Amino acid sequence: MEKREQLYEGKAKKVYTTDDPGLYIVSYKDDATAFDGKKKGTIADKGVVNNTMSNILFALIAERGVPTHFVRQLSDRETLVKAVTILPLEVIVRNVAAGHFSERYGVEEGTPLLRSALEFSYKRDDLGDPLINDDHVLALGLATEGEIAQVKEYAAKVNEVMKEFFLDKGLKLIDFKIEFGKLGDGTIILADEISPDTCRLWDVETNEKMDKDRFRRDLGKVEETYREVLSRVSGN
Amino acid sequence: MEKREQLYEGKAKKVYTTDDPGLYIVSYKDDATAFDGKKKGTIADKGVVNNTMSNILFALIAERGVPTHFVRQLSDRETLVKAVTILPLEVIVRNVAAGHFSERYGVEEGTPLLRSALEFSYKRDDLGDPLINDDHVLALGLATEGEIAQVKEYAAKVNEVMKEFFLDKGLKLIDFKIEFGKLGDGTIILADEISPDTCRLWDVETNEKMDKDRFRRDLGKVEETYREVLSRVSGN
Repeated sequence: MEKREQLYEGKAKKVYTTDDPGLYIVSYKDDATAFDGKKKGTIADKGVVNNTMSNILFALIAERGVPTHFVRQLSDRETLVKAVTILPLEVIVRNVAAGHFSERYGVEEGTPLLRSALEFSYKRDDLGDPLINDDHVLALGLATEGEIAQVKEYAAKVNEVMKEFFLDKGLKLIDFKIEFGKLGDGTIILADEISPDTCRLWDVETNEKMDKDRFRRDLGKVEETYREVLSRVSGN
Repeated sequence: MEKREQLYEGKAKKVYTTDDPGLYIVSYKDDATAFDGKKKGTIADKGVVNNTMSNILFALIAERGVPTHFVRQLSDRETLVKAVTILPLEVIVRNVAAGHFSERYGVEEGTPLLRSALEFSYKRDDLGDPLINDDHVLALGLATEGEIAQVKEYAAKVNEVMKEFFLDKGLKLIDFKIEFGKLGDGTIILADEISPDTCRLWDVETNEKMDKDRFRRDLGKVEETYREVLSRVSGN
């Protein structure tokens, strides 16, 4: 399968059409951004880590009953995926207070939540991807009630599968961001990526941050951490 | 019934204990603030308007099946109410895009919503009363699922009653903020106030703003507008 036209270039990935209108090729970059693009950098081989790790997790999640866009890995940085229209909502699931949640609600980072919490961000770079609730989503026609229910059911399952998987690798799943897409027939499937760019992972023993916060917060050992997470996840 | 100890002084009201532990006296002030207290001013006789208007609306809403804290008006500015512990959530109901909603989601003010939308703000002045969703409320233990369901049911009813009532007075109910409190036995009742400080009301004919936005946005005729709204609401 060959890349044809570049459809989209984001902060961390490019997406290409193929000769099959039902399939895209995703190409992962090493570029890293944070704080709405205000901080920019490069993390060597991040593209390789994120591509490989996403595919391992998508395969696991699909086995556990949540359909994903993953078809097959083409190379270190490239993967064949099902063509979807991405829902305009980032889906964030939190198990422990961190990041924006901690700042927004004045809760110390690391505080366990009484229960997992799901939130939506409206995918609008120009507005800073604002928090949005279910009623707002419906009032603006961004998704239907059925789509919201499906996304929530899948996100809860993804959280359950990933918490268990990462714990087995010595990592606590603090929170993560996923995105869903719609196939031509309206079916909702998990899309985008799952990587240290999109999950907060803390070492079970040391609480060391094993994710993009090392880049965001200048904590050092960024490349080493991405490689270490891939090594744990892939079991190599 | 006499005022005893001052329990609380907010931006627009003072609350006093009475000799009956189950009753408070609310005293409405003319002070006006906006933008998290950054803008301050006085609106002559606002306290009289808001006290009288709140009581008319609370009586109407109670008739329609939503319990409220209203007991009886004591004077122009003072009202006897049931003592409650206020839930730490502002409840905002929106029928038409305006204010923070318009800014947050990039929707032009005046755009009708596909359906009414309810949102919660976490009542924390120090955090700027941030938007919070149901999952966050539960994850932080700010209310129970049963309390959230009750508050939503009541808020929808209040919206229905008020939309109809204001339309009959030539006013479109764009959005409003209400607060709920808990009695000693856990019963949830409508509390706080309902006034041009807490509702957006636009004249049905001219779309003129008939609410606190006249103060927030320096639109002039602030006192006249408050008086006009009370005159329409009270039928005098």
